[in-house]
Amino acid sequence: MDDINFAVLGTGGIGRRTLEVSQDKDNLRPVAACDRHGVAVDHDGLDVDELLAATEGNIASDGGATAAANNANGGVKQSGHDKGVAASVQADPTETPIEDIIDASDAIDAVLIALPNFEHDFIPRVADRFAEADYEGVLVDVLKRSRVIDLLDEKADTFENSRISFVCGAGATPGLLTGAAAIAAQSFVEVKSVDIWWGVGLKSGYEDNRGTVREDIAHLDGYTIEDAREMSDEEIEAVIDDHGGVIEFEDMEHADDVLLERAGICDKEDVTVGGILDVTSDAKPTTTTVRVTGTTFDGETGTNTFQLDDDTSMEANVNGPALGYLKAGVRRNRAGEYGVFGPADLMPGF
Amino acid sequence: MDDINFAVLGTGGIGRRTLEVSQDKDNLRPVAACDRHGVAVDHDGLDVDELLAATEGNIASDGGATAAANNANGGVKQSGHDKGVAASVQADPTETPIEDIIDASDAIDAVLIALPNFEHDFIPRVADRFAEADYEGVLVDVLKRSRVIDLLDEKADTFENSRISFVCGAGATPGLLTGAAAIAAQSFVEVKSVDIWWGVGLKSGYEDNRGTVREDIAHLDGYTIEDAREMSDEEIEAVIDDHGGVIEFEDMEHADDVLLERAGICDKEDVTVGGILDVTSDAKPTTTTVRVTGTTFDGETGTNTFQLDDDTSMEANVNGPALGYLKAGVRRNRAGEYGVFGPADLMPGF
Repeated sequence: MDDINFAVLGTGGIGRRTLEVSQDKDNLRPVAACDRHGVAVDHDGLDVDELLAATEGNIASDGGATAAANNANGGVKQSGHDKGVAASVQADPTETPIEDIIDASDAIDAVLIALPNFEHDFIPRVADRFAEADYEGVLVDVLKRSRVIDLLDEKADTFENSRISFVCGAGATPGLLTGAAAIAAQSFVEVKSVDIWWGVGLKSGYEDNRGTVREDIAHLDGYTIEDAREMSDEEIEAVIDDHGGVIEFEDMEHADDVLLERAGICDKEDVTVGGILDVTSDAKPTTTTVRVTGTTFDGETGTNTFQLDDDTSMEANVNGPALGYLKAGVRRNRAGEYGVFGPADLMPGF
Repeated sequence: MDDINFAVLGTGGIGRRTLEVSQDKDNLRPVAACDRHGVAVDHDGLDVDELLAATEGNIASDGGATAAANNANGGVKQSGHDKGVAASVQADPTETPIEDIIDASDAIDAVLIALPNFEHDFIPRVADRFAEADYEGVLVDVLKRSRVIDLLDEKADTFENSRISFVCGAGATPGLLTGAAAIAAQSFVEVKSVDIWWGVGLKSGYEDNRGTVREDIAHLDGYTIEDAREMSDEEIEAVIDDHGGVIEFEDMEHADDVLLERAGICDKEDVTVGGILDVTSDAKPTTTTVRVTGTTFDGETGTNTFQLDDDTSMEANVNGPALGYLKAGVRRNRAGEYGVFGPADLMPGF
């Protein structure tokens, strides 16, 4: 397989870590990144270390103090309004970051969309802009919510006509765990249930993952996604405090359900997702586990199980799979397969 | 995805069960099957129940008594030398079964090669015959041994020129467990080890799986694959009796190692395969488990684990994945991707 040049939209926790993890992967070159105020493009490959230093303020929510300190130490040009990507010596300030990436996209094989998706149609609309600009390549996102998949599916023809392969739900859950469920299902001729149960310890990583925590809050009884979007950071933290820093979620709207159904693994009603978030500790409060129960051709009922080690962080389990699915998407795209793909679509299986 | 028409070469345990399991899969039609003495082709779909009844003598090793009883009950024409496929009312006797399948292969999307491979180059040579006949489609095998993959890789150019996608090692191990290892590896930027440990209880299924047991014997200290091939059934059973019916295998030459290496997951030296075979019980003597240990981008070391339920039989874990990988192979083939693919090549991942 040839080299893959990729871009990242958004340099919050997921975007930054994807850039970081890409350094450990062969034949994968980050060539563009943007946030609200800046864009960096270098077709020979971005200097990731410099860009990470520049964008540290994006997620630290410390008013830029960290980045300013980096500036003093390492020459990052951050100051005044040039926070985030714009603070990088590789970047330019911009008011049209996505358009700037699109302008450079002839030489970009894949784009990871690492933007918050509090409006369900936001990521689909971003994809539209790439399609309208005749981008031919791969779009990848790590979105969570089931209903977004339907919005993307409505655009499948547009993507096919544009030669875009859109890989959706390619993080941990959905993503890594959806793929594991698809593999575990291969023992069975009928899958009865898929139960996904996750544990995340997010003490030192809390600042990096505010967006994820905010989206999780929307799953609590009495809260909607609109509530969660409009709450202040302080209000979010008050909810967390009310739970003593440890929140259990049941029956979450994670897209594993529709992604497994569209791949023919099981009915979406038979998929459940829940978990425990602990912001008081880095240790996972429970072991992340996928249980796939089904009947075999010879009439037995069994449960195959996939467990992530407690020592693998949520971050590791999002960003590795995101790049793995990105690669799978590029392969499909180069073979001329376009449209919408979920993680389980990229697996073997009837 | 369109319908898939497939053929099975060989109607021992794996071939017959693949026909059986295919009845539970949508859009998958068995259109041809053969053994040494007979060939059945029906492009509208074989009558699987009749064919299974006819070929029961192939593996029962009961001198045809079972099939003869079926004959009395159900009209299977088995008698005299017309044992196996030739005993089916859908079949014709033949001395050139593989050529007969090749002759019909214009309308066959995929061929599962379920033939014993005691000579390492036997399955590669069968593939050659399809390539020489300008077959364009998918070949799938469930072979086990590492060294066969190298022989297939030497023919990759031939397959590519012929528009053949050869999916190798697509059973349980290698196969299902190799794929699970590839998924489990996505948490890590470096995989340190992959440990595959299997348990098989094979009391009632023993007769159906003599070929597999014979191949396993070759992994015991003091035995070679040539020994195992030349031993009589009585000699094989004497070895099993010497072990009290329960044999533990260590450091087996299973192709999971080369298949994970060629997919870039880890070095083949870091893969170990072992397990326990118990022919005195249908219960598994140990739980089949894959352990993938690696380091994450953030410097932690962890072990992700995949476990098959003890109630899923070896047969279920071979034949479901074989058809799942077959489907994946057909998809690649239709997209114009040819050559040699292992299970892990059909997964996402860097």
